[in-house]
This record gives sequence, C-alpha cells and structure tokens, in this order.
Amino acid sequence: MAETSRISAGSATAINVGLLGLGVVGTGVAAKLLSQDASLSELTGRQVKLKKVLVRDFARARDVELPDGVLTIDAEDILADPDVHVLVEVMGGTDPAENYLRRGLAAGKHVITANKEVMAKSGPELLALAQDNGTNLLFEASVGGGIPIVGCMMNALAANDIRSIRGIINGTTNYILTRMAHERTSFQQALGEAQGLGYAEADPANDIEGIDAVYKLTILASLGYRQSFQPDDVYCEGISKLEPQDFRYAEELGYAIKFLAIANLDGAAVQLRVYPAFVPAEHMLAKVDGVYNAVEVNGSLCGQVLFHGMGAGREPTTSAVIGDLIEVIRRAGDSGSPGYVQDGVEVKKLTPLKVRPIGDLQVRYFIRLEVADTPGVLAQIAQVLGDGQISIAAVLQRDTNPETKSAEIVIITHPAQEASVQKALEVMARLPQVNRVSNTIRIEE
Amino acid sequence: MAETSRISAGSATAINVGLLGLGVVGTGVAAKLLSQDASLSELTGRQVKLKKVLVRDFARARDVELPDGVLTIDAEDILADPDVHVLVEVMGGTDPAENYLRRGLAAGKHVITANKEVMAKSGPELLALAQDNGTNLLFEASVGGGIPIVGCMMNALAANDIRSIRGIINGTTNYILTRMAHERTSFQQALGEAQGLGYAEADPANDIEGIDAVYKLTILASLGYRQSFQPDDVYCEGISKLEPQDFRYAEELGYAIKFLAIANLDGAAVQLRVYPAFVPAEHMLAKVDGVYNAVEVNGSLCGQVLFHGMGAGREPTTSAVIGDLIEVIRRAGDSGSPGYVQDGVEVKKLTPLKVRPIGDLQVRYFIRLEVADTPGVLAQIAQVLGDGQISIAAVLQRDTNPETKSAEIVIITHPAQEASVQKALEVMARLPQVNRVSNTIRIEE
Repeated sequence: MAETSRISAGSATAINVGLLGLGVVGTGVAAKLLSQDASLSELTGRQVKLKKVLVRDFARARDVELPDGVLTIDAEDILADPDVHVLVEVMGGTDPAENYLRRGLAAGKHVITANKEVMAKSGPELLALAQDNGTNLLFEASVGGGIPIVGCMMNALAANDIRSIRGIINGTTNYILTRMAHERTSFQQALGEAQGLGYAEADPANDIEGIDAVYKLTILASLGYRQSFQPDDVYCEGISKLEPQDFRYAEELGYAIKFLAIANLDGAAVQLRVYPAFVPAEHMLAKVDGVYNAVEVNGSLCGQVLFHGMGAGREPTTSAVIGDLIEVIRRAGDSGSPGYVQDGVEVKKLTPLKVRPIGDLQVRYFIRLEVADTPGVLAQIAQVLGDGQISIAAVLQRDTNPETKSAEIVIITHPAQEASVQKALEVMARLPQVNRVSNTIRIEE
Repeated sequence: MAETSRISAGSATAINVGLLGLGVVGTGVAAKLLSQDASLSELTGRQVKLKKVLVRDFARARDVELPDGVLTIDAEDILADPDVHVLVEVMGGTDPAENYLRRGLAAGKHVITANKEVMAKSGPELLALAQDNGTNLLFEASVGGGIPIVGCMMNALAANDIRSIRGIINGTTNYILTRMAHERTSFQQALGEAQGLGYAEADPANDIEGIDAVYKLTILASLGYRQSFQPDDVYCEGISKLEPQDFRYAEELGYAIKFLAIANLDGAAVQLRVYPAFVPAEHMLAKVDGVYNAVEVNGSLCGQVLFHGMGAGREPTTSAVIGDLIEVIRRAGDSGSPGYVQDGVEVKKLTPLKVRPIGDLQVRYFIRLEVADTPGVLAQIAQVLGDGQISIAAVLQRDTNPETKSAEIVIITHPAQEASVQKALEVMARLPQVNRVSNTIRIEE
C-alpha cells in the first residue's frame, strides 16, 4: 500500500486531500480548498482537491458547503484510499488521531497536523516514521496559529544554537491577563468574559492550568534543541492564583504579568517552565495583548527574534495548514519522487541535554504576604530570607487594614534559587504573624 | 559545465562552498563554516567545506583565520570550479556581483545571496534562471538580517492574499529616529552618533534617503504579490527633513515617528512607498527601537503577523545565510538530484497588479507651518484646505515667538488625497502670512 499513496508524476494529476475533522479549523481548511480562487494551483502547479472529510455525524449543521459524497463517518474511506495523497488532521486529542497519523505515514501519505498534544507526546517518533516512509509530516498549526514559528525553528533559524525560547503561546490566558491588567477585574470575572466571547471553553482547565502551553513548549523546545522532550519535563503553574493586587504592584514596579512558556539552555541542561511571570513593561513580550501570541527566540547568531500574531482561530490556523500543504506539494514537485523529506527532530548528540529541575531555577521573585500589623514582622521575614541566602532588592508595605489589623508586604528579591525560596516561603507561612503568603511570582527580565 | 556543479550523490561527499566577499557578513559566514562545531553536518548529513573565498586583496587584515590556499583574488577560481557546489555572495552592489550570480546559476550551482540591490533589480529574472537550471537561489539575508521574513513570505505565509506589508527595514534610520524621539536631538546630531557607533556609513545617503529600504520593500512586495516590481515603482522620501519639533508633536498627539516601508493592496493596484510616518504609539511598530527591524504582514488568513529582530550586522546576517545553506543542502538530499527547486517569484496572473501613483494615496496628514502671528492666518489656511476638499481633524497653535512675530501651527487632517494635499501645500506656501511649510508627515494608522 505504501507506494500507491505517492503523489504521482506529471502536473496533470490532482493532489487529493483527506481531511480528518470538520470543527473550527477543519471548516476553514475545507472552505479554502473548495474556494474558487486559483492561488493554490498557481502556487503549486497542481490541482488540489478535497476528496473526503471525516466527521462524527452527518447531520450536524456546517459553516461550509461540501460537494455530495465528500463527507464520511468512516475513517477507512480516507486512510485506506491510495488516492488520498495528503492527510490533514485537525481533530485534536490523541485517540484516535495519533493512530490515524501513524497509518497515514505508514501508507506513504504526506501528513499535516494541527495536533499539539500528539506532536508534544509523540512528535519525534512520528517524524522518524515519516522519514522511514519517505513522507513529510508538517505541523506548523500545532503552535502559534498563524505565526510561522514551527517552520522557522526547523529551517530558517537552524544555523543558531538556541539560548532561549520565551513565548506567550496561549491566547485564552493572555486575554484573561490583559483584562485583569487593564480593568483590574478578578480572575473569575475575566475568565467569565473570555468564556462569553468564545475565547475560553466551558471547561477552561486545559488553558488556564497551562496544559495547552506545556504541549506547545514541548514542541518548540524539541525543535530548538533537536532532541525529544516530553510534556512531563515542563514545570507548570497556571494563572488561577493571580489576584488584582498582583497586577497593581506589577504596574507600579514597571512590569506586566504574562503567562510565559520558557525553554532556556543552562550549561548542558535545559530548563523548561510555564508560569505567570513579571516581565519588564518595556519588553516586547509585555506589549502582547488580548488573544495575540508571541514567541521570542534568542539564538547564538540571530540574537532575539520575536514573532507576534494570532495564535488561534479558524483563519490563522488555516493559514498554517494550507502553508504546510503548499510546502508538501512543492517538495514533491512533479517528478513523482517523494521529494525532499523533512528531517526528524532528533540529531544524534554525544551528550544529550538534561532537563534541569525547577528547584535549580535562579530568578528574582515577587513575594506578596498578608501579615499582622505589629512591630517586628518585617524583621522576622527578612531573617527567614537571610537564612535562605535570599537577598532583598526592595520592600513595599501597604494597605494596612485597621479592622483586621493586617498589612500587605511585598518583597522583590535579588536572583535567588527556587529551592531556597520555596523553603523560605514554607517557613514564613508558619510564622504566627504571617496570615497568608498571598502569591509568589517569578520575574523574567 | 552545468551538470558538473551538482551536489553529487552519497552523503560521503562534502558540499563545497565558494564565498564571494569577506567583509562584515562574509567574515561571519566564513567563521561559522570554519568553526569546529558539528551542527552543520548534523543538520544536513553532509560535511560542509569552505573551499574558496574571493577577496579584493590578499594583504588586508581579517577577523577570521583562513586555512592556506582558501583566499583568492581571482573570481574564476570559484566560478569556473565545478567542485564548488554552492555560491555564497556577500559582496553587495550590482557590478560584478550580479554577473557572478548569473554565472553560478548557469553553471548549476546553488546560489545564496545577501544582495538586496541585485535582488530588487533583477530578482525575478535570476529566480527564473535558477529554475531553468534546476538550482536554488535563496536570499533570506537580503531583507531583515536575522529575521526570517523572506522565507516566510515565500512559503509559510503563501496561503494568504497579502493585504499589506509594513516594515521598519533599515536599522540605521530607526536608530536615528529613536535617538531623535528619546533625546530630542537634531537629525544631524543623531546621524553623527550613528556614524560614531558604526551604525551609519560615512556617506549615509543610501540609508537616510531610503534607497536601502526601497530595495528591501521591492523584494518583499514582489514576493508578497508574486509579480515583479522594480525599485522605481516605490515612492520614497528620506528622513533628513525631520526636526525635533515633529517628535514633540508626535508624542503629544499619541504617535511615534517611524521610517516605514509599505506595500498595500488597493483594489487591483498596489501602493508602494517609503517615508517617515506617524504611527499610533500603542502599535507594535511604534515600539521598535534602536537598530531593530520589524515587518508586519497582514494576510487574508493569518491576519497581522509581526516579525521583530536584528536587521543587520555580522551575526544576524550570518544566521540568514547559513539557514539558506542548510535549506539548500537539505533540499538536495543525498540523492544526487538537484532536489526541490524554489519557485520563481512570478505567478502567471490574468490581470497583473498595477502600481498606484503616490498622488492617489489616501491617508491623514500632519502639517506643521510657521506663520506670521497675525489675526486671520488660520482662517486663510483653513480656506485653502477646504478648497482642496481636505477636512481638518485638529489644529494646534503654539510657540509664538514675540521677536519674529511668528507662530507655529499644526494641522491634523482627516483622510485626504495626496495630490490634493500637495496642491494645497503649494498654495499655502505662497500665502504671504505663511513663512514656511515646516514639514508634512503622513499618518499610518
């Protein structure tokens, strides 16, 4: 079966696409493939035909009108059809999507996927499978929607040793944080607004707990460092603990709070983390607002390159999927050969990079505490930090509440080790004068 | 000769690079190719060897140590050598660079160039020559230094109809404008500083008059609209007329002044222009400071995607050149076939896009006038604008100078037609009460 799915020779033959999934993104892809504009054939020298679309049920209303006979509820109509040359998977989730991708690659089909979960968990393995079968597996749409970050990490920036990748790669959470920063709303209120606008799902855990960002960072880090990382390698904290006060202090201190996904090289190890962080207000990442995404790549030659754009949505993601489709067809050419096959992610290294545990992190910290408004509290807190070799860069004391006799203390530390800071926070939390360690936010310069 | 320069089959054979030029960029490329890091061979599966480097004289001191026998002052040592598989041209200028590029392509060599002038003037022709010879011509380094904008325009964003491209694509002028904005220095002073820091050349005309930006915009527009534009198609005004007052008013009115290169679709025509413009302070382009470059692409699917990074310099440009080199070698694979050949720029269109004359431009204008401080002046000016169907959005009158009995008037117009505005400015300049039309700056929202 493998050979029969090859794009055949001669520009007269159409390229047949099998589309798996007809949700938000699938509808955009189908609409573009069915549109009467001639750009795809102009760009590729081939007719491109949407042959079959896999859906879960026939009856559902669609935003796109499909020709008779294109819809199917049987995946075999696509997977087992040797005349489907390119598989486009926009179903999401691992099951059954991953199995479909494997079958497509094994059958010699080129595969395009928007599936961040599958690519994060099994990307390197699937890329190796593609290479073994002389086919291409492209996945620009899996990270950053309309921002061409995946292709750039694989190709245009390949000359660089990557020092760091820092991204705002989840639009839902960036919308929520932008609202909290500009309107000083509570997290719950901002989340509700995001849900009302369709930016957040009814069950928002995947976004706000950082699972989505962890998948995307895993993909970017694997590409950037050319070895296989797993989602479990990424330390992750979500955004639900943030309070309006954090945003007030951030602004006062010259920072924005952004939900960052970071991979950075530290000696022979990589640190991988996703959490809300203070970012200097003048930094480009601090200026990424609303549902926009951005990724900043710091390379040994290119320096800091920042990509900014729409990280989700029907049309931006369609831009990425169709861009991959054009690439696949151009690579195949009209020679009948499988064409240039993208390398797998992994490069054989003498010493693979280790993942550095979060306890080794060295950054500055913003610590906000609610304390009893009595003399000597600050001295006690300073003592705890001093014992942990954590030096203090600034202290703010504010908001004394005469009723509860409590006050708010904010401490900015000099760079300190995460493990020491966590230990100090535990000790502080046990001090009788400390009512609450309200929040601890890392500062990324 | 054509066939003998092909990258030959089998991964055992090294890829030989011939480097034309050993200036700032050439030195970076040579250093990377000579470095002992294994990344290039890991990424391409091939040994990459710097075989020859063309220089003008042997004696000059170099920042890179070359093995014996690599330097040559005779271009034939590279052009006529069938064992040079890839030509990297970083000489700049059209003569003799363009001739060398043509000879390389005709001989079946893959060609990588950083030459914006040649690519702006002859790019589509050279790409067609490459295609005819089954070789690749890549030119990522010709625009935006370390920012991978050229490749993205050709490939990742290819699914989009391009609505507009707006860029800050000259680092020298952006440095000067940033200094003028932040320090309120004069143009001459900021230029002197830029020269002192090596950001501007002794003869700065190429940068400050916009010639460099015109070349780069011509390349981006030709890629974005897939037809051949020429530098002459671009309307251009340099930055030397800007005065500190312009920056003061810009800030007061909520704008930054940026030297923009813009291509935008307007019906069946494209408007191409390079000039200093007011940009809303909250726009990402307004936040591009110093020698950084940025390009914002507005596509029918992707929406606004912004690329930001170092637009020049040894290492960022080397990142682009080596990225192209990796791409060329990957495309060739180890099959011995020429591999996937990049399409030419031009796509056959039923109706090629016209270039719209600058007189047709419709934007808002900032007009600054020095007038006699006498009653009725503003009424006269308003009359002239009214006669030209130009409506006024705001007027500021300031800086009355009792000694010269003159005042400064600033007018912000609603969107108006360039031709009408230019005509009105001529009439205004002839009014006896108008001492000087100090500046006219277009506003790009």
